[in-house]
Amino acid sequence: MNDTLKTQLNHRSIRAYQDKPLNQETVQTLIDVAMRTASSNGMQQASIIRITDPKLKSAFFEITNQDYIQSVPECWVFVTDNHRNHVIMQEKGYDFDYTNTIYRFTEAFTDACLMAQNVVVAAESLGLGTVYFGSILNDCERVIELLKLPQLTYPVIALGIGIPNQEPQLKPRMDHKLRVFENEYHHFDNYLETFKKYDEQMQQYYDLRNANQRVDSFTNQVVTKNQFENEKCKKLLTLIRKQGYDV
Amino acid sequence: MNDTLKTQLNHRSIRAYQDKPLNQETVQTLIDVAMRTASSNGMQQASIIRITDPKLKSAFFEITNQDYIQSVPECWVFVTDNHRNHVIMQEKGYDFDYTNTIYRFTEAFTDACLMAQNVVVAAESLGLGTVYFGSILNDCERVIELLKLPQLTYPVIALGIGIPNQEPQLKPRMDHKLRVFENEYHHFDNYLETFKKYDEQMQQYYDLRNANQRVDSFTNQVVTKNQFENEKCKKLLTLIRKQGYDV
Repeated sequence: MNDTLKTQLNHRSIRAYQDKPLNQETVQTLIDVAMRTASSNGMQQASIIRITDPKLKSAFFEITNQDYIQSVPECWVFVTDNHRNHVIMQEKGYDFDYTNTIYRFTEAFTDACLMAQNVVVAAESLGLGTVYFGSILNDCERVIELLKLPQLTYPVIALGIGIPNQEPQLKPRMDHKLRVFENEYHHFDNYLETFKKYDEQMQQYYDLRNANQRVDSFTNQVVTKNQFENEKCKKLLTLIRKQGYDV
Repeated sequence: MNDTLKTQLNHRSIRAYQDKPLNQETVQTLIDVAMRTASSNGMQQASIIRITDPKLKSAFFEITNQDYIQSVPECWVFVTDNHRNHVIMQEKGYDFDYTNTIYRFTEAFTDACLMAQNVVVAAESLGLGTVYFGSILNDCERVIELLKLPQLTYPVIALGIGIPNQEPQLKPRMDHKLRVFENEYHHFDNYLETFKKYDEQMQQYYDLRNANQRVDSFTNQVVTKNQFENEKCKKLLTLIRKQGYDV
């Protein structure tokens, strides 16, 4: 056991932050870690847009419906970025359409996610809190417009970073036997039975988002959260294509 | 500066490993870290398949064309997994098609990537080396078949972990100013000019994959690596659909 592992095993999403900006040195360290992250073929096909403009933060609140996106000191949007290398190729006189596969898109998408999680661990090692905003995808088209994302870029996830102003309980996780298999995918006979213990653990957990109110069982949450349908989310493939990815 | 950051800023991909298995306790710690990773809505829609069967490792060598995938002590394939929650819903009597959006797929894809990078940092904090195999996507169909991946699962990336048997140079990265922007995407006037310094740095770097041979400039690599076209990679969207994702 070492400090890194202790930090990682103590991960909680933080949704309330102190009203203090990160100092410039800390921001630079987090950027350095992001840059050092592995990338597919070393092509570094992901970029970061730091949101510092309060107007932009308000717009993101409208999109995500999560008010703490306005108050979190650092808010970074991770985007796929095949644009940069595409321009390099154009300047070198190559005009073939190298983006003509979904492969290039998923490569860049993976690059962006790996970078985001690397920043999460770095920030938490410094005692900072983090929270992902997958909800920027509620209105991807607006995000593209707001951040003036060019062709061959696409928003993946946003990340909030700051000094925590809350100390949430560790949220229970399902047993690793349900998620880690050997050599082939493993099926269980009766999932509801298998999840019984985890369902009970989850009902003992207090979610600070609804203070003093225990949460529903995991298997009930699966139903509730999957019933939520956002019409705009159905159009993501159209948008990915509109961004120039010929997937 | 702390040990976590030092580890992260010292990241290199390791492609030669000592012939020693990880002990069971270490494997369990890495699994615990993987399980603790943030996931979209807490739905934990990613799983891990540990490859321990030598026959399977040979098959992965055929797919990736990277021989060290056979010798690396631990090889984990990270997969999207909406299957598990889908079965839970079926057992609860819900038959609506909640997977009818690309949104669910990208959620799970993100979950899988975040988990992979969390494991990378944990492993490296223990002095272990890691290497990603994006090349499993060279033949995704075969990977699905080999790992018996059911509907609503899909392979994202593989990760090798072991005791390093080499100490590669730190691979240069492009300047963060080229990848980190404020409030909106930033364009540069002349990319080839802007990349000049980085191109020079890259030419000073020795890639252990081609011992004693300096590598090409970054902007030249962009051309070479993007000229590579794998016909099978063009069909990924078809495969994603075949796996039951109605994207």
